[in-house]
Amino acid sequence: MVCVGASCTRTVHRLCVRGLCSPSYPEDQDPTRLLLQLCVDRYYVSPGEANKGRFQRGVSCSYGPLGAELHRNLLRQWWLSVTRSKARVFGLNTQSIGGDRATRPGQLRVVDCDGLTQLLNRRDLSTEQLVQEMKSVLQMSSPVRTNLLQGALEQFVPSSELVNRKLPFGLAEAGLCFQPANGSGCRPAEVTQTSLVWFCSPRTSSQWLDHWTRQRLKWWRKFALFLSDFSTSEVLGEDLEEATTRGVRITYDFPWGKETLETLWSRGESELLQIYGGERSKLQCRDGSKTVPHVVSMTGNMDRGVLAFLSNSFQQLKSDDGKQKLQHRKVLKLHPVLTPVKVSLNISRGATLELRQVCEGLLQEFLEADITVWPGYLETLQTSMEQLNRKYDEMGVLFTVFISETTLESGLVQVRSRDTIIKETMHISQIRNFISRYISAADNI
Amino acid sequence: MVCVGASCTRTVHRLCVRGLCSPSYPEDQDPTRLLLQLCVDRYYVSPGEANKGRFQRGVSCSYGPLGAELHRNLLRQWWLSVTRSKARVFGLNTQSIGGDRATRPGQLRVVDCDGLTQLLNRRDLSTEQLVQEMKSVLQMSSPVRTNLLQGALEQFVPSSELVNRKLPFGLAEAGLCFQPANGSGCRPAEVTQTSLVWFCSPRTSSQWLDHWTRQRLKWWRKFALFLSDFSTSEVLGEDLEEATTRGVRITYDFPWGKETLETLWSRGESELLQIYGGERSKLQCRDGSKTVPHVVSMTGNMDRGVLAFLSNSFQQLKSDDGKQKLQHRKVLKLHPVLTPVKVSLNISRGATLELRQVCEGLLQEFLEADITVWPGYLETLQTSMEQLNRKYDEMGVLFTVFISETTLESGLVQVRSRDTIIKETMHISQIRNFISRYISAADNI
Repeated sequence: MVCVGASCTRTVHRLCVRGLCSPSYPEDQDPTRLLLQLCVDRYYVSPGEANKGRFQRGVSCSYGPLGAELHRNLLRQWWLSVTRSKARVFGLNTQSIGGDRATRPGQLRVVDCDGLTQLLNRRDLSTEQLVQEMKSVLQMSSPVRTNLLQGALEQFVPSSELVNRKLPFGLAEAGLCFQPANGSGCRPAEVTQTSLVWFCSPRTSSQWLDHWTRQRLKWWRKFALFLSDFSTSEVLGEDLEEATTRGVRITYDFPWGKETLETLWSRGESELLQIYGGERSKLQCRDGSKTVPHVVSMTGNMDRGVLAFLSNSFQQLKSDDGKQKLQHRKVLKLHPVLTPVKVSLNISRGATLELRQVCEGLLQEFLEADITVWPGYLETLQTSMEQLNRKYDEMGVLFTVFISETTLESGLVQVRSRDTIIKETMHISQIRNFISRYISAADNI
Repeated sequence: MVCVGASCTRTVHRLCVRGLCSPSYPEDQDPTRLLLQLCVDRYYVSPGEANKGRFQRGVSCSYGPLGAELHRNLLRQWWLSVTRSKARVFGLNTQSIGGDRATRPGQLRVVDCDGLTQLLNRRDLSTEQLVQEMKSVLQMSSPVRTNLLQGALEQFVPSSELVNRKLPFGLAEAGLCFQPANGSGCRPAEVTQTSLVWFCSPRTSSQWLDHWTRQRLKWWRKFALFLSDFSTSEVLGEDLEEATTRGVRITYDFPWGKETLETLWSRGESELLQIYGGERSKLQCRDGSKTVPHVVSMTGNMDRGVLAFLSNSFQQLKSDDGKQKLQHRKVLKLHPVLTPVKVSLNISRGATLELRQVCEGLLQEFLEADITVWPGYLETLQTSMEQLNRKYDEMGVLFTVFISETTLESGLVQVRSRDTIIKETMHISQIRNFISRYISAADNI
């Protein structure tokens, strides 16, 4: 890897090793701009300035096919990590609007506009009556959730029966939450949150916070190319009343500054007591002696997570295999487990029906092994191998397979690796296992 | 299997073979009541009459740990089936509120109640001004989506570039959609929808509708115990204008009547043209000749799907191993792939530390193989083996493993099957593979 920043003199700078180090970028080389454009061009994010803006703000946007798959993969990994970590983590699926929480205060609410408009059109009401009617309709309407914590706390009692009221245990959920608009012209935003709410005895809550902080940071770093971009910092209690409250943020160091990916809080018992009307007897659990559990909450933003991993894996490298003109090779080195497309299947020009049939067979094999495939052989536009490789590198495709006339004779195919750009020849019967093993090896590091 | 309906004379009646056939039930034996209560007792659905009501209506409710897992499994199977079926199905992830669709009409909208209340509290406005202001705020607010189709149609152009504008291809998405309240006192409901939108040439759209109808019915029936409960029926076009419109419903025959699980429509081209302002050139794709694609949509309700599979798999059988008194054995015979807990790990009374350690090891093995485990060995309440089996049958646990002192000596464990109630003895080193193979075999039928 060679640094492309002409004026850069450092050799181990974090942006430098990615080819993103120039202290003053010409506008067309600003790494943030380049990354966002690449995400739109390569089907991670749907086009449109407003949509790109949401994406960069770390709230839910309209994802393209590759972004949707990355999002899915990330959520699945989160789920596996929290549910596999302990025998006593259970999943939940609570409602995002209203439900039994109608009396809960909430700034954002879902209203029936037809009903409100009808009310506004009534001529028989005085201003005062109209205001009263409007207020009561708004008050009766369903609040939308802003976090998943509340739902988990409400499920505490039924869930605790599941483990015979024995501590510790956890409730996990992932889903959409809503945020009020911040500023005029802005619309309410939606965020894909992950939540693990951990119920433990008061005397262990501080240790659990430390335990989970290590676990969660380890999880984020597992998929990172540059580990130091992910870090933790202690936060002071905000509006949580207890003095014992402690919090930790896991942040990602974006080119434009640090942003929070996940927040962990040791929250004490007060919120649980509030929900259950202070009835301590309802809440008592066993961990040696009887006790009202303390709550450790972990709330992650997986939309910002998607952005963080895209940013972390984005590299701009001097292309070595360029002939005359020096080219910058842009590549998304997403972790093998996360990257949306694991392998692309391609055929050389002048493709025959037989070559396509070979591809179809291989495609089925991959799909059955749960390996996502890009059917490059279906494309009818003539593109050079360099163009194809450039496209697949920008998409983050892990391996590119070329099927040619030789394959029909000898069964040999060419496999190019995104990360090493080495081209290997191997027998067609071995590819599936080769790629499966490569991905599991990366998963188990 | 013996029918428990005292007054039933039929032998092959669909409710009869499940022990749910009595023409006039005493209230405590009504199969719907029994099923709903079992779902609450066994952690499928959170308690509360309102929540049970939503569950039975087939809209999203608050699910307990087992329900959440069943819901996840069903969505995952749907995803695998649509994305594996063809190389050219791509995932999407669009927004559930507002986004770029602010100008779209919508009855349900998310509003900032604090802002509206402030407006209502202003004393300086005349009634007319207030009404005008309120209306404009409502009009500017973000509509929530009622289906996923609209989002997919809006993503048609960027997605078509992905396949070089070659037909056919499909866009798949699963997510929450919202429904206006139907009747007073009711709140807006949310539904977990699945959507596959298939773009094809006009001359093939009718064949594709037939193809997908077969595929989708096959998918629903794949996980069913009683196939005939799932059926299809043609529907007449509702508000779709074209005369060529055809629709098919996939329904489930609940004890209280047929309800729709999924609807397939051959929708023509009109909605696409409307979104893109009638610009045919923007929409033209190739399938032999150039053409504006026709749309075949498939919209499923996975909340009702969860209810359908629970209902389909629920059986009440005369217990044969009862001693004096005749007992009814209630069991959820959920498909091995769907059932939330595949195996429970238990130890006999007087458990030693060594037995627990064996369980911990086995638990890790199962978790690594992605097999969900119920850690029964952590329970400290003394329960008989009959009580345990009854509980696990009602939870739909596929296999119950008993570790005993014998295991420490010989490595042998007892494995009980939910479906055959046969107890087998096998070596502890074989269980994981045995269960994995059992589940994959069921998956591949």
